[in-house]
Amino acid sequence: MTTIAELAAQVALPFEGDGDLDVSGVCGLATAGPEHLTFVESEKFVQQALDSPVRALVAQEGLELPGKSVIRSPFPQLTVIQITPLLHPRPASQPGTDSRAAVGTGCRIAESATLHPFAALGNGVTVGERSEICSGVSLGDGVQIGADCHLHPGVTVGWGCRLGDRVIVHAGTVFGSDGFGFVQHEGRHVKIPHVGNVIVEDDVEIGANCAIDRSTYDTTVIGRGTKMDNLVHIAHNCDVGEFSLFSGQCGVAGTTKMGAYFLMAGQSGVAGHLDIPDRVTIGPKSMMVRTGRSGETYAGIPARPMREWAKAVGAFYSLPRLMKRWRAEAATGGAPDSEGEKG
Amino acid sequence: MTTIAELAAQVALPFEGDGDLDVSGVCGLATAGPEHLTFVESEKFVQQALDSPVRALVAQEGLELPGKSVIRSPFPQLTVIQITPLLHPRPASQPGTDSRAAVGTGCRIAESATLHPFAALGNGVTVGERSEICSGVSLGDGVQIGADCHLHPGVTVGWGCRLGDRVIVHAGTVFGSDGFGFVQHEGRHVKIPHVGNVIVEDDVEIGANCAIDRSTYDTTVIGRGTKMDNLVHIAHNCDVGEFSLFSGQCGVAGTTKMGAYFLMAGQSGVAGHLDIPDRVTIGPKSMMVRTGRSGETYAGIPARPMREWAKAVGAFYSLPRLMKRWRAEAATGGAPDSEGEKG
Amino acid sequence: MTTIAELAAQVALPFEGDGDLDVSGVCGLATAGPEHLTFVESEKFVQQALDSPVRALVAQEGLELPGKSVIRSPFPQLTVIQITPLLHPRPASQPGTDSRAAVGTGCRIAESATLHPFAALGNGVTVGERSEICSGVSLGDGVQIGADCHLHPGVTVGWGCRLGDRVIVHAGTVFGSDGFGFVQHEGRHVKIPHVGNVIVEDDVEIGANCAIDRSTYDTTVIGRGTKMDNLVHIAHNCDVGEFSLFSGQCGVAGTTKMGAYFLMAGQSGVAGHLDIPDRVTIGPKSMMVRTGRSGETYAGIPARPMREWAKAVGAFYSLPRLMKRWRAEAATGGAPDSEGEKG
Repeated sequence: MTTIAELAAQVALPFEGDGDLDVSGVCGLATAGPEHLTFVESEKFVQQALDSPVRALVAQEGLELPGKSVIRSPFPQLTVIQITPLLHPRPASQPGTDSRAAVGTGCRIAESATLHPFAALGNGVTVGERSEICSGVSLGDGVQIGADCHLHPGVTVGWGCRLGDRVIVHAGTVFGSDGFGFVQHEGRHVKIPHVGNVIVEDDVEIGANCAIDRSTYDTTVIGRGTKMDNLVHIAHNCDVGEFSLFSGQCGVAGTTKMGAYFLMAGQSGVAGHLDIPDRVTIGPKSMMVRTGRSGETYAGIPARPMREWAKAVGAFYSLPRLMKRWRAEAATGGAPDSEGEKG
Repeated sequence: MTTIAELAAQVALPFEGDGDLDVSGVCGLATAGPEHLTFVESEKFVQQALDSPVRALVAQEGLELPGKSVIRSPFPQLTVIQITPLLHPRPASQPGTDSRAAVGTGCRIAESATLHPFAALGNGVTVGERSEICSGVSLGDGVQIGADCHLHPGVTVGWGCRLGDRVIVHAGTVFGSDGFGFVQHEGRHVKIPHVGNVIVEDDVEIGANCAIDRSTYDTTVIGRGTKMDNLVHIAHNCDVGEFSLFSGQCGVAGTTKMGAYFLMAGQSGVAGHLDIPDRVTIGPKSMMVRTGRSGETYAGIPARPMREWAKAVGAFYSLPRLMKRWRAEAATGGAPDSEGEKG
Repeated sequence: MTTIAELAAQVALPFEGDGDLDVSGVCGLATAGPEHLTFVESEKFVQQALDSPVRALVAQEGLELPGKSVIRSPFPQLTVIQITPLLHPRPASQPGTDSRAAVGTGCRIAESATLHPFAALGNGVTVGERSEICSGVSLGDGVQIGADCHLHPGVTVGWGCRLGDRVIVHAGTVFGSDGFGFVQHEGRHVKIPHVGNVIVEDDVEIGANCAIDRSTYDTTVIGRGTKMDNLVHIAHNCDVGEFSLFSGQCGVAGTTKMGAYFLMAGQSGVAGHLDIPDRVTIGPKSMMVRTGRSGETYAGIPARPMREWAKAVGAFYSLPRLMKRWRAEAATGGAPDSEGEKG
């Protein structure tokens, strides 16, 4: 329990209303109760806030919220993000290497880093300041983990791969599995050895149970500030631009270069060997097979510009009705009329 | 080896034919040999059973199976399920905490529970009676596991998440990874801290390498009796209705509420922020973007009622032929005729 | 650093040009520098090679590469594969069972095998000569692993499953999870116990975070020489033909038999209970629902022969334009003309 006045002080922002109001947690507006703090980002949600039992809000100047205690912020959601750890503190992990972790030779583990039981480090591994390596994480030979990283349980980082600073990896994700590359010879698939690595730049977050393959000879790159959801597949030799977003279960085939602010919606896919410019968006369940143009959104299988796909889908679902009409018209000798094309 | 008479006695059902017949295992009808027990659920499979070398069957009253030894049951497949562990016993796990498991402070582990080597438990974890926690499982701080659960190797349950009774989780599955939520600010993706949890109700079974995210502030719920196949993705704040079925590789975006008996076929997807009523079915590889109606089956990208989609697909595949015909007709001045619309 | 003459000697092939040329690594032609070795497989790439700073090449007899040092090989890429470990040696794993591995009773571990820390073996497990079992791998009771296998971190092999020789499994993959099989009874899903297993034949490679379910009563088979990419799902009772290829995130429903040289492109799916002949190919993001014909490539949802699908997609995207034309023509009384059908 903290008062709203204390919270406002901690984020150095002004407040209005009852400063002694106790707040026990952060919540979304839809489910917030009288004990919660939530935020209102625009006029659109003011009435919902007024009707809600919530008493403590963060809102921009100018939004009228009579009867509520309001912290005024130019970026209400960011302020709530800042307040969240104050109201929902997580126990700090104890720095140090648990005696049940396995650490190879020549490793450099920062004193402020935490190695949990059953973390398994090969030789020559580096772990930076304040990074947390959870149970069951495997770091191969020569792996480098930067500062302030958090590798959740069961993450595997293959030999020679490198993660930058402030990288968060959720449980079960794999970096540095061999790419899917084989040469056909006499009816067999001969494995191409993969001697490249994966580099994950600063401020990246990767979801659970993803798989990011090492490059054949060079480096598979995940650009800084990029975020991935769960079960994402990035094949060998890819180069993901910075500040990109990958939704759940999407996948990219090998040797594709993606520009900055690339965005893949859920369950979408991208073909290999493309060079995609900045700020391209792929719609859900779509399959991108061409390079695309910067700033454009693509959808469909294969993907086309979103408007083009949306029109084609509309026509697709109107086809059976249209055909029925044509049948009738053919019987009477008429041509298709304009009514048949709606939908 | 057990005789069919002994098996019938153990499930307290009558049998006909040679009671001394030895049975060594349960099998499907298609591959069953003379040493197996299998079942016949309807008249439709009687001839196949008579032609099969199998000698021991479970079948409903009234099905004529001369020459076979038959346990009579109103629910033959359920009876076979009941008999399976008798013919295929699995060694019972030894209750107790292996000395190579890591257990934090303040945990309550039932005496009849089993903790295998390299299970890693945080602080304040509860494990119920007869539950089995396999090697490499990670249970975060405050996790609660009910009675008679089975967590296969490498499962991760994040801090504060709770599993009910009789929950089975296959290897590599993750509960409580942070949801994929970011606020855009000055060209960066600012992480929304996730302080909610996941609650898995009783009698749920989850396949291998699934990922179920914790709620932002509240609870992601997997309703009782729900079953999921492998590689399923459930985003933050979802609420899965009871007795639902999720086939392999399907996924649900955030904050969607699904009613009871929801059914997703393989590789299908559901958009976020929907409120789907009871008994909705999504076809394979389909993408549900609207709420839908109870009892309806949807298919397509985006999904429509199955019949509507099936007709549109039929028309889609007949389009090239249709267009060819129109070309011919345009050349002769005719209108499309009824023949063009078949397929 | 090795000279090209030494490399040629090690693979017993002739070379031309400066034999004292030092080579430090293998690389692809597009990114190779003067210190690299790469290959040219056809006339098509000769000019690119001549323009590249690369000095050391493997090429077939007859390709003119003046100024370069060239190892002559009938199969240049295979030669590079052979040379790769010479230039990029990986430290050999130390044979033996790490004291921090857990080994059950009655296991037979070859003396030349390596068991890393926190590998967890049940009872009666066999591990063959020179096989490497990484940290966090779980091998259930009675599991058999052949010779020269490499199981990367966090792999789970469920009880009774068997892997042949030279099987490579990337991190987080699961063999032998229970199949997704339930009987509906009084509104509940009653679990069908799965007492079958998975057999993986020789020379198979499986990517990261895949899931391959055990058979209900028999065996789920992965045929020899088959290769799978990441996040692939193979349901219970499947039988994968030899030398098949499964790209990332594809999935097969239960009880489907696939012939030899089956090929699934990325994010594709196959329905259950099919019997697919040899040499069938499924296009990306496609859904195979019929058995198909040997040698044919299928695409679409549902899949049809690739040419049929490609034509239908072309027509699909031209529909809106076509409809607009019809509207115009309906207004003037004309019939669709040939111009409307392009695209």
